[in-house]
Amino acid sequence: MNRRPTLAVVGATGAVGAVMLQMLSQHADVWGEIRLVASPRSAGRKLAVRGEEAEVLALSEEVLEGVDVALFLVPEEVAAQWAPIAAAKGAVVVDNSAAFRLDPDVPLVVPEINPHAVRVRPRGIVASPGDSTLALIVALGALHAEFGVDEVVVTALQAVSGAGQEGVAALRAQLSTVAGTELGAHPGDVRRAVGEDTGPFAAPVALNVVPWSGAPAEGGWSSEEAGLRAETRKILDLPRLRVVATCVRVPVLTTHSLSVHARFEQPVTVERAHEILATSPGVVLYDDPGAGDFPTPADVVGTDPTWVGRVRRTPDDERALEFFVCGDNLRKGAALNVVQIAESVVSTLRPESGKRPEFGDS
Amino acid sequence: MNRRPTLAVVGATGAVGAVMLQMLSQHADVWGEIRLVASPRSAGRKLAVRGEEAEVLALSEEVLEGVDVALFLVPEEVAAQWAPIAAAKGAVVVDNSAAFRLDPDVPLVVPEINPHAVRVRPRGIVASPGDSTLALIVALGALHAEFGVDEVVVTALQAVSGAGQEGVAALRAQLSTVAGTELGAHPGDVRRAVGEDTGPFAAPVALNVVPWSGAPAEGGWSSEEAGLRAETRKILDLPRLRVVATCVRVPVLTTHSLSVHARFEQPVTVERAHEILATSPGVVLYDDPGAGDFPTPADVVGTDPTWVGRVRRTPDDERALEFFVCGDNLRKGAALNVVQIAESVVSTLRPESGKRPEFGDS
Repeated sequence: MNRRPTLAVVGATGAVGAVMLQMLSQHADVWGEIRLVASPRSAGRKLAVRGEEAEVLALSEEVLEGVDVALFLVPEEVAAQWAPIAAAKGAVVVDNSAAFRLDPDVPLVVPEINPHAVRVRPRGIVASPGDSTLALIVALGALHAEFGVDEVVVTALQAVSGAGQEGVAALRAQLSTVAGTELGAHPGDVRRAVGEDTGPFAAPVALNVVPWSGAPAEGGWSSEEAGLRAETRKILDLPRLRVVATCVRVPVLTTHSLSVHARFEQPVTVERAHEILATSPGVVLYDDPGAGDFPTPADVVGTDPTWVGRVRRTPDDERALEFFVCGDNLRKGAALNVVQIAESVVSTLRPESGKRPEFGDS
Repeated sequence: MNRRPTLAVVGATGAVGAVMLQMLSQHADVWGEIRLVASPRSAGRKLAVRGEEAEVLALSEEVLEGVDVALFLVPEEVAAQWAPIAAAKGAVVVDNSAAFRLDPDVPLVVPEINPHAVRVRPRGIVASPGDSTLALIVALGALHAEFGVDEVVVTALQAVSGAGQEGVAALRAQLSTVAGTELGAHPGDVRRAVGEDTGPFAAPVALNVVPWSGAPAEGGWSSEEAGLRAETRKILDLPRLRVVATCVRVPVLTTHSLSVHARFEQPVTVERAHEILATSPGVVLYDDPGAGDFPTPADVVGTDPTWVGRVRRTPDDERALEFFVCGDNLRKGAALNVVQIAESVVSTLRPESGKRPEFGDS
């Protein structure tokens, strides 16, 4: 297209929206107009993007007119309703919610892994994976390309901002309740001090870990666990891959950490895994525990890449590795992956309009 | 023996010692004299046990004279030096440190799993496993008895009191630094606020998780990870069992949580696993996530059993289960298992003296 495309950021006032506005101000500027959109409740607020103040508009059919690319950073139910409306108006939607991730007519894209997938988008919607999947997939995909992945067992330690600003507020409030006290030493004392309102979590998260996140899915799984499994299979195009996840909410503000056991078709060595990870786009290898070098959320938060450390050969299996990854759930886990998808969409837009092609024709 | 045995609690003033004195006051009283022993630094302090004040004695050869059973709740290097001295003086030593756990002449005992092992103690020493192994083994052992365990992949979320009172003090101090601030949103901000002194941990633990605990072992493993593997094999008497662990320190005061993937020789069902766990001594089954029922450290701390929830059949493997366990690392993970061992030792003491038998002759 000749004019620069119009971008809408739907959900500009949320936790991911805040990071998105930063990124749009820092990345190479490919956009014409940028419209900031949110719920009517937040309309009228002024936010800065690309060094200028912009007024937040209420989400409506009108506000989506003439938009070429619409970033949806909103809860699943809002995306389910509004993304098809935006697509019908000619926008390519990049959706950060779970609403369309497993729709066979919606590609699920991680630009480092399956960039080609962005071109085939029959519904005009491209989905970005969940934050825990994104913490895993760049490192796992790089190892898969060399060794062929066969089985993955993941424990995801999820930061509270994965549940939005409500999650952050809940942890901050609970920390203020427990700091400087003797709480945490007796059964239920943290629960009683925090009270009934545990925010978006099923139990207090300060001085605690909560082995549940998301909604109930079949077989005793949480939706986050089922999502990590299904999304990993879809992105790697391995519909029968053995993947199993346990998701645990931890008292960290931002950055998910994953403890990963991965088995491959080929024999593996730590040396070769190190070489692969050290040279993969989007990955930082940080692995010398004797020198104190391993990723932790406190060091990784606010950075773009997936950090990988604690790489070990599984002792009883020459084809398996253990490793530990940290990824900022608001950046690569959300805003960064969405903006990367959006930037790759630009080159696929029809020259004369923002209409979506069935196949890429850049 | 006719008189009631004399007990020494070596390390009475530590984090585990404090819980031990509580337990000795609550359990059926099988002991005659109880001597409280600690480093010379703590000697002279008065502590309550069985409703009476007792003065803490400095560890010395003299203080170990005439002791029938000596509980060692001290760091590994102190146990390595003093446990053989106590044993040479005729005491049966029950050691909570890692010093003797893998010694082939020292039994490693969990009374629910291998009670018979306590009777064969050629060095006069019985070892209690590490706190993470103890959080795992009672539930795993119960499932193993039915299904035959074949492979275990564990991520252990370790509470700070596993590193002693220093660990507790470090987390409390760090929480006071971060509570009520905006810290945790930028790379390194928690690290800068906490400063160089991170206590016994390799990185700040407030608003963070630290994928390292213990000392470096071969192959990139931490001593805690290597220990969990070797101890599980020894207790279950399965020297070739595939076991792999990742240990992560989390900002929880007390109670370790383990995310477990376990594969068995026989096909498994959640229903049968529930039946086994619901009827196993030392285990509480707490597994109805829809009703908010799963174990968390905040609820489990201060209780004796291992709590198990989130039991799921691994989707691609009819022989594997995922589950989540929580166990108080100061109780079953340390003091409780030690006192259980000590109580079982009493019946094996020779009638006329505290001398150890090669084989039990109660």
